[in-house]
Amino acid sequence: MTTLAARVAREYGSPSVMIDLDVVARNVRRLQDACAEAGVANRPHVKTHKSPVIASIQRAAGAQGITCQKLGEAEVFAQAGFDDILISYNILGPDKIGRLGALLGTTQVIVAADNPTVVAGLPEAGAIAGRPLGVVVECDTGRGRAGVETPAEAVALARDIASRPDLRFEGLLLYAPEDRLAQTQAFLDTVRAGLVDHGLSARIVSTGGTPNLKTLGAIRGATEHRAGTVVFNDRMMMACGVATLEDCALHVVATVVSRAGEARGIVDSGSKTLTSDTGGGLGGFGLIREYPQARIAKFAEEHGFLDLSACAARPVVGEVVRIVPNHVCVVVNMVDRLVAVRNDEIVGEIPVAARGKLA
Amino acid sequence: MTTLAARVAREYGSPSVMIDLDVVARNVRRLQDACAEAGVANRPHVKTHKSPVIASIQRAAGAQGITCQKLGEAEVFAQAGFDDILISYNILGPDKIGRLGALLGTTQVIVAADNPTVVAGLPEAGAIAGRPLGVVVECDTGRGRAGVETPAEAVALARDIASRPDLRFEGLLLYAPEDRLAQTQAFLDTVRAGLVDHGLSARIVSTGGTPNLKTLGAIRGATEHRAGTVVFNDRMMMACGVATLEDCALHVVATVVSRAGEARGIVDSGSKTLTSDTGGGLGGFGLIREYPQARIAKFAEEHGFLDLSACAARPVVGEVVRIVPNHVCVVVNMVDRLVAVRNDEIVGEIPVAARGKLA
Repeated sequence: MTTLAARVAREYGSPSVMIDLDVVARNVRRLQDACAEAGVANRPHVKTHKSPVIASIQRAAGAQGITCQKLGEAEVFAQAGFDDILISYNILGPDKIGRLGALLGTTQVIVAADNPTVVAGLPEAGAIAGRPLGVVVECDTGRGRAGVETPAEAVALARDIASRPDLRFEGLLLYAPEDRLAQTQAFLDTVRAGLVDHGLSARIVSTGGTPNLKTLGAIRGATEHRAGTVVFNDRMMMACGVATLEDCALHVVATVVSRAGEARGIVDSGSKTLTSDTGGGLGGFGLIREYPQARIAKFAEEHGFLDLSACAARPVVGEVVRIVPNHVCVVVNMVDRLVAVRNDEIVGEIPVAARGKLA
Repeated sequence: MTTLAARVAREYGSPSVMIDLDVVARNVRRLQDACAEAGVANRPHVKTHKSPVIASIQRAAGAQGITCQKLGEAEVFAQAGFDDILISYNILGPDKIGRLGALLGTTQVIVAADNPTVVAGLPEAGAIAGRPLGVVVECDTGRGRAGVETPAEAVALARDIASRPDLRFEGLLLYAPEDRLAQTQAFLDTVRAGLVDHGLSARIVSTGGTPNLKTLGAIRGATEHRAGTVVFNDRMMMACGVATLEDCALHVVATVVSRAGEARGIVDSGSKTLTSDTGGGLGGFGLIREYPQARIAKFAEEHGFLDLSACAARPVVGEVVRIVPNHVCVVVNMVDRLVAVRNDEIVGEIPVAARGKLA
C-alpha cells in the first residue's frame, strides 16, 4: 500500500510541505472557541501560514480581522479582500510610509509603535490616505522584545499619537511572558489609569501568542488575542503543552536518500527545508512520525542527518516519511505552496501567497 | 548623505539582500585562478546563488559546467542554457527519475549515488532519454555525511553502475574534511587501484567546498572542484580563514526599528531573513558592518534583537545598516531577488530563479 506521504512525494516532489485540512479545521475551531470562552475577539496572526486561503477558513469560523507582521503581508491579504488588518510592527522609512498610506486608503489597517521616531513618521500615511491611521502602543511586559519598557513611556507615546491629527490612538499591544501574567496585569492597569488621567482610553488591548492560549482570559481588560502557530502546531507547541501530536496539521514529507552507516541515515530535508530553528533546544530538528526514536541530529542545506542508534526498526533508502518541524512558521516561509490533504486523499495545492514579502 | 544601503532600503524595501557585483567578480576570478593554478576544472556549486545570471558570470570566467544540489535547480539552469550539470545528490523516486530522464534528453547531466537502491533506480532515466546517464560514486572520507564509507563499497558501486547499459560510470565525488586530506588521499588511491583491478577508471574526481580552497591541488588525481559559498562569502568563510570582510559580497540591508532599552535595539531582520543558522557557533546571527561591536543576540521571526552593551556609538531608530550573514547560502534561499550594486550605485535586481525548487 502506498502511503499518503508517498503519494504526495510522487505527485508534488520530495520534500513537500503537507497540511491536513481536517486538523487545520479542528485547530481553527479550537482557537475560536477559546477566544469566545475568554470573551475576546480572535485576530489570528497570519505569519504562520501567509495564506489567504487559510485565513478565509479562520474568518469563516468567526475571526475578527487578522494580524500581519509585515507591511508586504498586509498588502497581499488586503488584495485578497481582508479589510481589518493589524500590523503588529513598527513601520518606518519613506517607502513603507507611502505604501502604508496607499493601503490605508482602501483597507482598515492599524499599526503598532513602540517609539517616538516611528510615531513621528506615521502621520504621513494618514495624510496620504485622507483619514487617520489607527495606532496601538506596543508594550514589553517582561519578554525583552519589542515594546516600551515602562507604563510611563506607554502613556507618553499614547499622548503623542493622540495629539496628531492624522493618527488615532487605538490602544495597547501586548505579548506577555507566559509565566509573568501578574506583572503584565500590573503594567496594563498602570497604563490604563495613566491614559484616563489624560482623557484617553484603550479601545483595543491586544494579547498574543499560541503559548498564552493556556491562560487566555486571565488578563483583565484584554479585548482580542493574536495567535499564529496554533493553526498548524509543531514540536515547540507540543513542548510548551498547548498541542498534542494529533494537533499537528503540518508535516514535511521527506525521503530517505542514504543509509551510509548502520546507525546513520539521510533524508532529503536539511536547513533549506526544515530550517535551523532549534525550537529553543528541543533536541534534533524535527520529529519523524514513522521513526520517533530517530534523531535529526544535524543538517547540511539539503541533507538531514539521522542518528538511528535508538531505533529498533530503521528506514530503508527510498522510504517516504513525515516530519513534524520544530517551528512551522519558518518552514512555511520557505515554500511557495502547501500540499493540502484530507481523509487520506490529496486535495490540492494552497499558495503561500505572502511568502517572500520581506519588506 | 544617503548611504547606498539606505537607497536600497528606500527603493527595494527593508530588509533586502544586496550583492556587490565588483566583489562578486573578484571572488569569481579568485576561484577560477585557484582552480587553474591547481590544475583542476572549476565546476561552481550554484546552490549558493541559485541564479543563472551569477552562473553566467562564473561561466564567462572559465567555469566548466556547474554543480546543483537538487533536480529542480538543475531544471532551472538547463532551461537557462547551462548544458554541463553535475547533480551532487542521490536522485530517487518515480517522479524524479522521470524528470531526470527528460532533463538528460536535452542536457548533459551527471548524478551522484552512494547506495545500490539509488543506482538501481537510475537506469530508467537513461532509458527515457535514450542515452546513458553518467553517475559518480559519492565517497565519505571522514565527514560523516553522504557517501559510501569504505573504498570497497565505492568499487562495488562503480561496478554496479558500469554493469548497467543505461548508465555510465564517470568517477568519484568527494567532500573531504579540511583537516584529513591524507585520509582522503588514501581512500581515493585505494578506490582507484580497485577500479583498475576491474577494468574501470574514474574520468572525474570531483572535490568540493569553499573551505577546501585553502588546500586546492593537494589531492592527487582530482580533476575538478565544486565551490559554492566563495562567490559571496560570509562569516563562516571568514571564520575558517578563506575570506576577509572585503571578500563578503552579500549584505542584508536592514533597518533599526526599535531601541527599547539603553543597551538594546531591534532590526527588521529575524529568522525569516537571516535564518537561525549559527554558522557552527560564531556567536550571534550576523555581523553589522556599521556596528561591529553589536551582537545579534537572538531572533524572533521578523526581529533581530541587538545587544549593544559593547558599542560606544549606538544606532538610532530609522538607521539602515548592512549585515554580513553567518551563512549566505541559506539567506539567498529565502528571497526571490538580489539587489545588485556596483561602485556605490544600484544596478538592478537579479532573480533567484531556482529558489523554492525543493524537489
